Amino acid sequence: MVDAMITLTTDFGTASPYVSAMKGVILSINPRARILDLSHEIPPQDIRHAAFFLAAALPYFPEWAIHVVVVDPGVGTARALLYIEVNARRLLVPDNGCWTELAECSKTKPTVIRLTEQAFWREPVSDTFHGRDVLAPVAAHLSLGLNPNRLGTTASEWVDLRINPPERDGDGIVGEVVFVDHFGNLITNIHAEHMQFMPRPLRFVVGERIVDREGRTYSDAGAGAAIALISSTGRLEIAIVQGNAARSLQAHVGTRVSVMPGMKYN
Amino acid sequence: MVDAMITLTTDFGTASPYVSAMKGVILSINPRARILDLSHEIPPQDIRHAAFFLAAALPYFPEWAIHVVVVDPGVGTARALLYIEVNARRLLVPDNGCWTELAECSKTKPTVIRLTEQAFWREPVSDTFHGRDVLAPVAAHLSLGLNPNRLGTTASEWVDLRINPPERDGDGIVGEVVFVDHFGNLITNIHAEHMQFMPRPLRFVVGERIVDREGRTYSDAGAGAAIALISSTGRLEIAIVQGNAARSLQAHVGTRVSVMPGMKYN
Amino acid sequence: MVDAMITLTTDFGTASPYVSAMKGVILSINPRARILDLSHEIPPQDIRHAAFFLAAALPYFPEWAIHVVVVDPGVGTARALLYIEVNARRLLVPDNGCWTELAECSKTKPTVIRLTEQAFWREPVSDTFHGRDVLAPVAAHLSLGLNPNRLGTTASEWVDLRINPPERDGDGIVGEVVFVDHFGNLITNIHAEHMQFMPRPLRFVVGERIVDREGRTYSDAGAGAAIALISSTGRLEIAIVQGNAARSLQAHVGTRVSVMPGMKYN
Repeated sequence: MVDAMITLTTDFGTASPYVSAMKGVILSINPRARILDLSHEIPPQDIRHAAFFLAAALPYFPEWAIHVVVVDPGVGTARALLYIEVNARRLLVPDNGCWTELAECSKTKPTVIRLTEQAFWREPVSDTFHGRDVLAPVAAHLSLGLNPNRLGTTASEWVDLRINPPERDGDGIVGEVVFVDHFGNLITNIHAEHMQFMPRPLRFVVGERIVDREGRTYSDAGAGAAIALISSTGRLEIAIVQGNAARSLQAHVGTRVSVMPGMKYN
Repeated sequence: MVDAMITLTTDFGTASPYVSAMKGVILSINPRARILDLSHEIPPQDIRHAAFFLAAALPYFPEWAIHVVVVDPGVGTARALLYIEVNARRLLVPDNGCWTELAECSKTKPTVIRLTEQAFWREPVSDTFHGRDVLAPVAAHLSLGLNPNRLGTTASEWVDLRINPPERDGDGIVGEVVFVDHFGNLITNIHAEHMQFMPRPLRFVVGERIVDREGRTYSDAGAGAAIALISSTGRLEIAIVQGNAARSLQAHVGTRVSVMPGMKYN
Repeated sequence: MVDAMITLTTDFGTASPYVSAMKGVILSINPRARILDLSHEIPPQDIRHAAFFLAAALPYFPEWAIHVVVVDPGVGTARALLYIEVNARRLLVPDNGCWTELAECSKTKPTVIRLTEQAFWREPVSDTFHGRDVLAPVAAHLSLGLNPNRLGTTASEWVDLRINPPERDGDGIVGEVVFVDHFGNLITNIHAEHMQFMPRPLRFVVGERIVDREGRTYSDAGAGAAIALISSTGRLEIAIVQGNAARSLQAHVGTRVSVMPGMKYN
């Protein structure tokens, strides 16, 4: 039998002791639990970044993993903590919408349980660190086989934080940057499917900057050239070959990106 | 039976190959060892940061883990390397005081063994990387069941690096910032107990800045407001709601923090 | 039996979801695989940094580990993906020379297989993320016992990216900085053996700066002093005691470093 696996995604960084405290709590309850770091570099309190991250990463995981997410600006408020089953993934999250983008392509309704059963929490629960005091011990108990129904009561409402779809604008599409990756690549809310039947060539406008080259890979133009391509997440991505598009194009999450018919020069 | 676990805490970063070399050494001796990263982002040679980190993280771990700590500005000098048992925790550390804050609340005396038995070291031992050449192989041998008494001789002296307690000052308390976390929250040497019987409201002074609001969570004031609360480590913490207190209040480790009776306006 | 181990070395950072996607792919194929992070902080697309990193880290690992390296500016071009056996190490890498420095001290010829058998890849393979779509699944299949010969065909040519050896210059040696570590220590292409029979004292010149002190450890001079010593990787290293040599000496990868006879003052 495979030992249970708990993944961790936080905005804690690792210079602070918070992630380690969670690891200790998990191992104290389930010494066999395998702990896998996904990220501790989610920008502080950036729920949208976390939402994109989870939607892009979790689909690749096997069903049996338990994913704990602690990006939680609302810690200590009345915001709920949730156990989620969606798309055959299991998550423990604050109720701030970080998981709903992941659920977007699900055909079935998610199971959402509001954590209320304190028997599976640390005692006492602090006001400022529910990751350590609630989510970590609950994950450990789940990894030991606890039935999720014992965690609390089914919820029928939750915070929903979807990425807006792009909009049609004349012959073109208008969307926006939804994620800037480690390389400065700009990932948008425009999917490959949205552009599928548009006649080529296409012109891309990022903020005020025009990108006239569509490629298949990062190497389809010379160093320093701006290029549009389909990212590994299936979305329109604007990159600078061997460079940093966010920096060069002064773009960031929310920057408007439009796709329109390009000029035919021949 | 649970496979042994070795945790690693260093100031090496991960862009350099040093952490990886330690992992390889451990696995070459004990292929079954489970290796758990706690942090490789301790600021370079910052023993006090490491001391706070360990004191805040290790109490949550089960007793059977072996904690290797390599923040070691004195590498290659006559400073000793130590095996420590304290508070039912087991550590391998340079003798620089990084573990003594963790020991502060221990009721029993620590067991401290000075590593001298070279049979459990790599051969040859470099002058600049004892983490790889001494601590990693010793941890691996311990994880295989080696009796710690075989590592060397009991030590009765070691470097002690405690966090100074706060001081009484008239009706108030004067302490200091002892840790700045990833969010810029300022954690002090003032414990909840120190403030427990002071009449409310309280006024907090951080450097030259006055903080008049005491809260329970990060959400007890509007965005941008400075707030005093009890951190998840049980200490007075100064935070900026949805902001970065270290930056906004220009505070750092060592900044004076005082607690005094506040104004009653009604 | 020991569960298989797959190590990961990338330039992806962990704020982006790419590393996590690879972990998910591996675990979906081999749920028992142990995944070990070496680094995700290789500077973006810096193949030389990766090459030094691997040469300094992998020799410490046991033979049974499988090392996946994704620093891959050429993704989507015709560059090959390779399975390598060299020095009793097993790697999966893009064909960009990141592994050849590791091979330098090997007495036997490496086994190099060009990955062509798509049965072990994800379907479909993206144009921009072969780490997730080719290397991760291939590593997972190898960890389950797949014979590497089934991955493709033996290659007889590959990109070679060796560190240049230093050169003799009169009575001295001229080399260069090949790696700057997390502490700002400057590691050169000059090995201890190159300097072994040179009469002492030695003088070191880093760019325009003279370093007249040779030591054994970081503590062989006062704080702030520049010192030459033999690094834990066996190479000449220039350090600033309790400081950052790269910053203080304004040096970087490629900065010229020479070793020459020093002044005898007595």
